[in-house]
Amino acid sequence: VVLRDAAQRQGAPTDLAETLAAIVGTTQVLSDPSVVESFTTDWTRRFQGPARLVVRPADTAAVAAVIKACSEARVGVVIQGGNTGLVGGSVPAAHPGLEGPPVLLSTSRLDSIGPVDTVASQVTAGAGATLAALQRAARAAGLEFPVDLGARDSATIGGMIATNAGGVHVIRYGGTRAQVVGVEAALADGQVVSRLGGLVKDNTGYDLSQLLVGSEGTLGVVTAARLRLVPHMAERAVLLLGLASTAAVTELVAHLRGHLSGLSAAEIFYREGMELVCRHSGLTPPWPEASEVYLLIECSGRTSPLEEMLEALSDLEVDDAATAVATDSSGIERLWSYRERHTESVSAIGVPHKLDVTLPLGVLGEFEPAVRRRVEEVAPGSTAILWGHVGDGNIHVNVVGPGPEDERVDSAVLELVAGLGGSISAEHGIGRAKTAWLGLSRSEAEIAAMRAIKTALDPEGILNPGVLLP
Amino acid sequence: VVLRDAAQRQGAPTDLAETLAAIVGTTQVLSDPSVVESFTTDWTRRFQGPARLVVRPADTAAVAAVIKACSEARVGVVIQGGNTGLVGGSVPAAHPGLEGPPVLLSTSRLDSIGPVDTVASQVTAGAGATLAALQRAARAAGLEFPVDLGARDSATIGGMIATNAGGVHVIRYGGTRAQVVGVEAALADGQVVSRLGGLVKDNTGYDLSQLLVGSEGTLGVVTAARLRLVPHMAERAVLLLGLASTAAVTELVAHLRGHLSGLSAAEIFYREGMELVCRHSGLTPPWPEASEVYLLIECSGRTSPLEEMLEALSDLEVDDAATAVATDSSGIERLWSYRERHTESVSAIGVPHKLDVTLPLGVLGEFEPAVRRRVEEVAPGSTAILWGHVGDGNIHVNVVGPGPEDERVDSAVLELVAGLGGSISAEHGIGRAKTAWLGLSRSEAEIAAMRAIKTALDPEGILNPGVLLP
Repeated sequence: VVLRDAAQRQGAPTDLAETLAAIVGTTQVLSDPSVVESFTTDWTRRFQGPARLVVRPADTAAVAAVIKACSEARVGVVIQGGNTGLVGGSVPAAHPGLEGPPVLLSTSRLDSIGPVDTVASQVTAGAGATLAALQRAARAAGLEFPVDLGARDSATIGGMIATNAGGVHVIRYGGTRAQVVGVEAALADGQVVSRLGGLVKDNTGYDLSQLLVGSEGTLGVVTAARLRLVPHMAERAVLLLGLASTAAVTELVAHLRGHLSGLSAAEIFYREGMELVCRHSGLTPPWPEASEVYLLIECSGRTSPLEEMLEALSDLEVDDAATAVATDSSGIERLWSYRERHTESVSAIGVPHKLDVTLPLGVLGEFEPAVRRRVEEVAPGSTAILWGHVGDGNIHVNVVGPGPEDERVDSAVLELVAGLGGSISAEHGIGRAKTAWLGLSRSEAEIAAMRAIKTALDPEGILNPGVLLP
Repeated sequence: VVLRDAAQRQGAPTDLAETLAAIVGTTQVLSDPSVVESFTTDWTRRFQGPARLVVRPADTAAVAAVIKACSEARVGVVIQGGNTGLVGGSVPAAHPGLEGPPVLLSTSRLDSIGPVDTVASQVTAGAGATLAALQRAARAAGLEFPVDLGARDSATIGGMIATNAGGVHVIRYGGTRAQVVGVEAALADGQVVSRLGGLVKDNTGYDLSQLLVGSEGTLGVVTAARLRLVPHMAERAVLLLGLASTAAVTELVAHLRGHLSGLSAAEIFYREGMELVCRHSGLTPPWPEASEVYLLIECSGRTSPLEEMLEALSDLEVDDAATAVATDSSGIERLWSYRERHTESVSAIGVPHKLDVTLPLGVLGEFEPAVRRRVEEVAPGSTAILWGHVGDGNIHVNVVGPGPEDERVDSAVLELVAGLGGSISAEHGIGRAKTAWLGLSRSEAEIAAMRAIKTALDPEGILNPGVLLP
């Protein structure tokens, strides 16, 4: 850490807006309070914080220059993509030791998507490109970007890399991490590192790209990435099943995993979620009598996966009265909508506490009733709505009832998870929401190692202050 | 960095053997010069260096205690698995600033392999377990560990993680990195970090496991890992084709990649390698007239992939007189042996300069003749033997002729590679062999970031000194 002239340090923030305007252009520095406010509130409405201004650089060099200017002024930089995160990682947090409110750096203009390389099955995308735009570009070239999630129209590639976003196809293709061939990023000192060459084998020292994946903007600002694409699977089949318990679901999924080469999603949700979704969205339930647990299975392939799907189920006792299948796109969309409309339906009844956790597959059947009991104990009368990616052991526990500041239910759920060998964050990251509980999932030695890395790459702590590390 | 009493620091090395013996037992501290020498020479015979003794801890706690003792004595620790590396990364190198020769830590006793979890398709293996032992354990449970390479009987899981080993199936399953769910490692301060819980989704801060993959023992000593397994593919088909040029091979592989869902290997070698292998090993050539370039394709599946393979080739002009196919294990082994015996055949004619590089797929056809010309220019009369994993753009350039210390040919090849946008190390790492050329593949900003991370986690530089960073 270089000692700075105190006067310069104090003076800097007032000049910062001008410096930033010189870098990105006056029109790309937003300081009108009402405009700034639209960036500084989390869409879950649980998190907000002040920013001195919003800056929207158009290229990597401008991002680096913005960071350098903020670093010299000892001003924090909060990085925001689609602002679809669920843990407050992209809105300003407390940042003792820095000068006043942070600058909010929006990646929205870094939205270019390069030509699809069909020989290598790769593409380079800017951090601000949305998932949906990337998916369209890949499909136009006969390929697919294999990560998909409900927020696809807003979620950005940069945010997905920063949080190692998961989604519904992890069971087949892995999460965002597995798709990242290399990233370009601006570091805290304003230097740019760039691994966009698309080499799939490149063992020349520490994999900085992989270190940045999941680092939640605390080690560098991802500006672009070289991403893997996969062959387009033209045929899909979706099956919705009603089952009696979570344990029955995990058993079935373990069986299917061994028999279905095309298995591309295995989603779980529950009676209370189905009822809420139907009430909120006007959908008709898939069959007359409500089931306790719903399992949605998707298979995809070059040829129709329906036969393989039905054959894999033929040995098993499945209740035909609680089964729906679709192979055409409108039918598939309809079955998926029961699952995908959970998020909006929950938000419609209140501000939920959203706890995104993974359990070892073997204990998921035990966890589900246990977490409902625990929630009822600490927040009597609250509503718990659960769903998730059951093939990955990933459950989203949503609790509506306790106020935003009342974290007893969060503590209770996360402690239960940790006690069962699970992770307190499966795919949303730590953000601001979970820093206090990081120690439930990571040991002191690990946190010390993380802190050492953070200090090494961002000695003044200007990047996403208050996020991830307690 | 804690300042230490100078007297204690000087005295420590003489007591170190006793301290280490107290940790691991007297019989596991080897100091007989002839025994130590068997560890301190690289199997390529290009690298050697002095070690004060060899220590063989039996568990993670002992590894951590050994590192702590060495750290306190300011003595370097060189980590060795199967000693099958090709860049001198596991034998002692120069280490200014530390006390005398380093301790060589052998992971050979950390060779346990846990029960295979067939629900999660995972297994935990000790760092010293060989690849072959892991493959056997997975197969016994009906699964496969998807990384395979020629040194499987000696190469260890720890070494493969430390170097992010590649091998022949990267085209289908990715390299070692893609199989690592989590690692356990001892850090330079003697603390242990452990991520063996097998959670596939776990976004709780920096992925230390992924940072350790490919770090070549410079950030921590991997003691065990939780690894992904894949379904066993019972049926295999192998096709060997003779072609006229590297460009024809890359074109064919791009076509096959889009049409063969079971493609699990695509290996290239050349006329001079085929002749050398046949001369050295007594194998009969696959067909009478030698081809300029050989392409070996392997497909695997639950059902026989032969039909799909032949169909994918049916549109193309293939010379039947230069084609061999096998679907039974002895036939498959015979076709693979032309490729796999390259390494030993080259070693039989001299001490090769081994340059393991990746090129973007689009320039491989240009690189191959260019590198031969360049080698002939800087080392006239030398023998260049090339082979590699053509689907990944990965070519192993072996040059026999120049003495071990004459690095002109290494420089010439690596500079050519960098000029074409390739990587100076595809799958072997940097080790001692390539530190001088790291700047060809990594920018100053990247090297500075790597150095900052190294200093953060190993401030005194005791772990694998002289390896990776220049």
